[in-house]
Amino acid sequence: MEINGYMSIIVGISLASLIFVVWLARHVLSFDTGTPAMRAISDAIKEGAEAFMRRQYGTIGKLSILLAAIIFVLYGFVRGHHGFDPVDSRLALAWWITLSFVLGALCSGIAGFIGMWISIRTNIRAASASTRSLNAALRVALRGGAVSGLLVVAMSLLGVGGLYWLVSTTTGVDPTKIPLMIVGYGFGASFVALFAQLGGGIYTKAADVGADLVGKVEAGIPEDDPRNPAVIADLVGDNVGDCAGRGADLFESTAAENIGAMILGAGVAISASKSGVAFAAGSIGVMLFPLIARAFGIIASIVGIMSVKTNEKEDPMKALNRGYFVAVILAMIGFGVASRWLLYVDGAPNAWIFFFISGLIGVLTSVAFVFITQYYTEYRYRPVREIAEASQTGPATNIITGYAVAMECVALPVIAISIAILTSYKLGEMALPGAGFFGTAVATMGMLATAAYILAMDTFGPITDNAGGIIEMSHQPEEIRKKTDRLDAVGNTTKALTKGYAIGSAALAAFLLFTAYMDEIRNYVGNQNTFHAIDIAKPAVFVGALLGAMLVFLFSALAIRAVGKAAYYVINDVRQQFKEKPGILKGTEKPDYGRCVDIVTRGALRQMVLPGILAVGMPIAVGLLFRIFITPQDPLIAAEAVAALLMVGTIAGVLVATMLNNGGGAWDNAKKWIETGMYGGKGSEAHKASVVGDTVGDPFKDTAGPSLHVLIKLLSTITLVLAPLFL
Amino acid sequence: MEINGYMSIIVGISLASLIFVVWLARHVLSFDTGTPAMRAISDAIKEGAEAFMRRQYGTIGKLSILLAAIIFVLYGFVRGHHGFDPVDSRLALAWWITLSFVLGALCSGIAGFIGMWISIRTNIRAASASTRSLNAALRVALRGGAVSGLLVVAMSLLGVGGLYWLVSTTTGVDPTKIPLMIVGYGFGASFVALFAQLGGGIYTKAADVGADLVGKVEAGIPEDDPRNPAVIADLVGDNVGDCAGRGADLFESTAAENIGAMILGAGVAISASKSGVAFAAGSIGVMLFPLIARAFGIIASIVGIMSVKTNEKEDPMKALNRGYFVAVILAMIGFGVASRWLLYVDGAPNAWIFFFISGLIGVLTSVAFVFITQYYTEYRYRPVREIAEASQTGPATNIITGYAVAMECVALPVIAISIAILTSYKLGEMALPGAGFFGTAVATMGMLATAAYILAMDTFGPITDNAGGIIEMSHQPEEIRKKTDRLDAVGNTTKALTKGYAIGSAALAAFLLFTAYMDEIRNYVGNQNTFHAIDIAKPAVFVGALLGAMLVFLFSALAIRAVGKAAYYVINDVRQQFKEKPGILKGTEKPDYGRCVDIVTRGALRQMVLPGILAVGMPIAVGLLFRIFITPQDPLIAAEAVAALLMVGTIAGVLVATMLNNGGGAWDNAKKWIETGMYGGKGSEAHKASVVGDTVGDPFKDTAGPSLHVLIKLLSTITLVLAPLFL
Repeated sequence: MEINGYMSIIVGISLASLIFVVWLARHVLSFDTGTPAMRAISDAIKEGAEAFMRRQYGTIGKLSILLAAIIFVLYGFVRGHHGFDPVDSRLALAWWITLSFVLGALCSGIAGFIGMWISIRTNIRAASASTRSLNAALRVALRGGAVSGLLVVAMSLLGVGGLYWLVSTTTGVDPTKIPLMIVGYGFGASFVALFAQLGGGIYTKAADVGADLVGKVEAGIPEDDPRNPAVIADLVGDNVGDCAGRGADLFESTAAENIGAMILGAGVAISASKSGVAFAAGSIGVMLFPLIARAFGIIASIVGIMSVKTNEKEDPMKALNRGYFVAVILAMIGFGVASRWLLYVDGAPNAWIFFFISGLIGVLTSVAFVFITQYYTEYRYRPVREIAEASQTGPATNIITGYAVAMECVALPVIAISIAILTSYKLGEMALPGAGFFGTAVATMGMLATAAYILAMDTFGPITDNAGGIIEMSHQPEEIRKKTDRLDAVGNTTKALTKGYAIGSAALAAFLLFTAYMDEIRNYVGNQNTFHAIDIAKPAVFVGALLGAMLVFLFSALAIRAVGKAAYYVINDVRQQFKEKPGILKGTEKPDYGRCVDIVTRGALRQMVLPGILAVGMPIAVGLLFRIFITPQDPLIAAEAVAALLMVGTIAGVLVATMLNNGGGAWDNAKKWIETGMYGGKGSEAHKASVVGDTVGDPFKDTAGPSLHVLIKLLSTITLVLAPLFL
Repeated sequence: MEINGYMSIIVGISLASLIFVVWLARHVLSFDTGTPAMRAISDAIKEGAEAFMRRQYGTIGKLSILLAAIIFVLYGFVRGHHGFDPVDSRLALAWWITLSFVLGALCSGIAGFIGMWISIRTNIRAASASTRSLNAALRVALRGGAVSGLLVVAMSLLGVGGLYWLVSTTTGVDPTKIPLMIVGYGFGASFVALFAQLGGGIYTKAADVGADLVGKVEAGIPEDDPRNPAVIADLVGDNVGDCAGRGADLFESTAAENIGAMILGAGVAISASKSGVAFAAGSIGVMLFPLIARAFGIIASIVGIMSVKTNEKEDPMKALNRGYFVAVILAMIGFGVASRWLLYVDGAPNAWIFFFISGLIGVLTSVAFVFITQYYTEYRYRPVREIAEASQTGPATNIITGYAVAMECVALPVIAISIAILTSYKLGEMALPGAGFFGTAVATMGMLATAAYILAMDTFGPITDNAGGIIEMSHQPEEIRKKTDRLDAVGNTTKALTKGYAIGSAALAAFLLFTAYMDEIRNYVGNQNTFHAIDIAKPAVFVGALLGAMLVFLFSALAIRAVGKAAYYVINDVRQQFKEKPGILKGTEKPDYGRCVDIVTRGALRQMVLPGILAVGMPIAVGLLFRIFITPQDPLIAAEAVAALLMVGTIAGVLVATMLNNGGGAWDNAKKWIETGMYGGKGSEAHKASVVGDTVGDPFKDTAGPSLHVLIKLLSTITLVLAPLFL
């Protein structure tokens, strides 16, 4: 089949999915929007979220345009032309890389925005549906989430596939060199994702911590109480942090992974044809395999999502799990079809089976992450119960025990990733000599095959959280509250699972990307200077590694501190509102929700700049600075030091992010376990201690942890885009 | 000069220092032991500490004998003979390595024991001296600390030097291969140090946290109150954790560094003689340079220690700093002399100057660590004040801010280490081609030159802490308490500084040791299979790196959890004593201190086993397991994966240890800052919040953090000893 044939399938399925998304959105929006009281609250959330996104995207837009200009100048005017460059003129190369960057940034922004847009419209509809039945509410919330999930994955596919097609039809470039021209797409996507996740994460936790400290602790009013001026800001936060942030995060994962797998696929195809082995579907087929497999994965996710239904009695989590397994099994079948079709090698009839098994390992790794995360964050298991038990002796032992759990919980995910990398590499080698890394790439694709479903479950979280808030604030009857509480609890679980999934896929995707980085450097320097090792025994490379790990710690420190600073603005404003209008606490005056939303918006945007610049600046600084260590004997030392920064930064990032995510989740659920009546239940000393742990965990799990996912991938894409500058 | 000439100097200075230590100990013991009330308390501490050490050393002894037997069997019977082995028979090699291991373990044990022995005898004498003058108390406490500090460094020198001499006189081995035969000494030392630090660290914090929670929080009695049954256990803990643990830790650093530097020195001498460059003092001189420089450093430290004096008005920290600078300057001079004498190269007259500058960089790095630690842990600066300020809004914001500070504070030490490694490597290369790593070795020696002084300051900490406790419990007048409080505050600072210093030197020593590890592997496999790169782009090596970082997190989790578990035993016992004897709280009945000491002893020893076994077992497991990835194309993959485990484990260990140490210190001093009257002072809500932070920081800074120092070096020495088994 020719390139146009494959492309019609890829673009066709993406466009069909987008049309389905539009239909699904209209379907969700056709549900009723409840009572005027509910609408008033929902409108306030909508207004606040849209105001935040407008301003945030203004800031991110300016930063992106600045960076695009820098990239264009560096490639077009500063750097000389290399023989390996895919196009003849350096201006043409600069143009394509900049265009990819801008498109990636734009699509990432759109993905985040639509996620938020549908979420703030679905919350009220899910709330209203909960007055009818649990099943109705579950389905509305999940389908709302699916709009975001499907859109993100389809758009990332359309973006990478479309760009590829555009380059291949408008230029005469060697098709295997095209991925190098569109790596900017992944960088643009991660650049926007970083700021979206950072800004949203800071916003949501500053509002949450601020509202809790001044409302629950100082004024003694319950959570989600309409008398709290920060309550709307808190509900807005769920949308801008979880929906917009994670949407951009996973958009970026799939985009980066598509490109990385294509680069490796191109490498495999080239080396196979050199050694006389021929893929039946040609090298174009191998290179486009990731996109085809992804397209099949979208269809599997759609079927899974539409199959979810429940009844009033069942645990809604079970219904979501059933749908997930439908998606997993369909994705596996699609994967098998794509492997047999595109990875069949004439001389090695079993090769495609080995690749297929690699893909299954990826799928199983994602399932393992889901179970490990559950073990460490649900109160049915030992870790969370241990924290709850330690709460009896006060906040200090709650924190110590929680921190020990957080540090412990990195072990199993690391072992799972290790097994996935080693076995899929081995399987790749068994399939074809030299195809080991392509094996790990296929495993990554397997892990990301059901990304759309996972993302739908993730966005389901803030939708049900908001629905519960709307029900609470509009004083609905107890039995309806219980329904939304059940959905809210499920939403907390799905949010935790998605984070585990996101970090696992980030680790695999990063491993893929730095293999691609090495491929790229190797191609650039040609055969006379082979670049086969990232040798951390060299002092400069070791220092690069040390700085990479340090970056993760410093970035986390800045992200956590940013929450504290932004929360102070909230606390001060709420205190002042209570003072200015004494009627608020009596319920006779209405607080000014908008003022609080406005203050936390400005605070979060101001605080996201420093950690963002650190993340982008440090790999560039090391790459350019370490050029002073370049010697004739070691001309690639700067590129090697950056690679070490990237790899060890990724290792540290995976560990710290897992620690922060799961630790935060465990503290949260230790509180919930006590609230079921354990150790004295609500209001006991143990409960007070567990509230401290929960508050500490908030910026860990919702700001620093998720931002680290994006940081990991940003490090990979930034080095891929800028690698030619470090030589 | 012949080998016997150098050896006479080295052994002579070590023996002279040991004689001086005996004189100093007798001098300290000649001071009076105060009132009978003071003696009663001191005796109880002595009894508890000695009981703990007896039992602990019993356990460690058994584990050491077991491991010695395993090493002997592996080398003597399992592994075949290699051509590069320094001796002809494998039994002879097994004998020397096992002997070194046992001697290292024994000396490390003695070093820890004597540190504790002198500390529990000096505390009462310092307390009694404080009734006379601040100067008297300061000098007694510092000289008591110096007994431990000098003994540790002199014994490590005597051990390595003596073993070297023994091997060279009893066997006909090529002198440059001797270090390989005595690497077991470093492993034995770090094995004992790990358990000493773990057991002591768990003991001290379990007693501290337990005493505080049940005494201060539940019963409402002040710290160090004689009615608290855990109060003696708490005072015992300071001795067994800080003195014995850190003594073994730094004994191990100097021993490992001596051996590592000798291996690298041997390499430089060999390659220099091959390329026709001749060291004026011969290759023996280069190899023994580390020991000579260390011997001069001991003399410098003795002069520095004896020069310390103060008056009633001055800040005692200033007096200690003056003495430190005397030691630093003398050590620099001695370093210069040793460099000119032993590192002078006939063909390159400036080479010794470059090495000398490398040494100065090491000295300056230790000074930088001292200042950075002060910045992050003293309440004169921004970080601690920020935590204190955040305490106003409760324990949650205290913890969040403290944690952000803890993560932030890794940045500057990493930059300092990076600069030290890169510049000293460059200087080494400038001195002689191929001597870059020897340059970093010389920097490490510079950093450790004043180890004896630093260690004296460290042991000063628990002595003054105990002296304060004795004064408090024996109801001395207010003005004397104020004196011991001032000394206690200085002791807190010196303890924090030593930890910063210990981690910095551990990082440099580890970098040295893994260079030595690569040298060793390279020698073993000969020229046909060069081992020049630790290539983390290989999947197995990357997984080794991932597992190394994971080990650090899991080990910390186990250490922190161990404190929690052991503290529960204390809490339960104290509660029971209060119930059994209601007169205790009224002051009419005496609590059973011994029972509490006994319970925490058993608890700490039980809890130290699991993390200890993890630390020892994991590098061995990876080394042996990864042998399945050995292929004819890549015969060294298992050794390479272990090297990556070691290096990235070291990076993660340095970062996490710095975070835990400085974070804990910052929380501690944020509480102290509030106790000076800030934000409402003692008893305010801010103070209560800061007590939570202080308690959380305790197991961080006194158990997990210091144990990580030892873990880092254990990883290096274990791989050095077992490397031949991974091939």
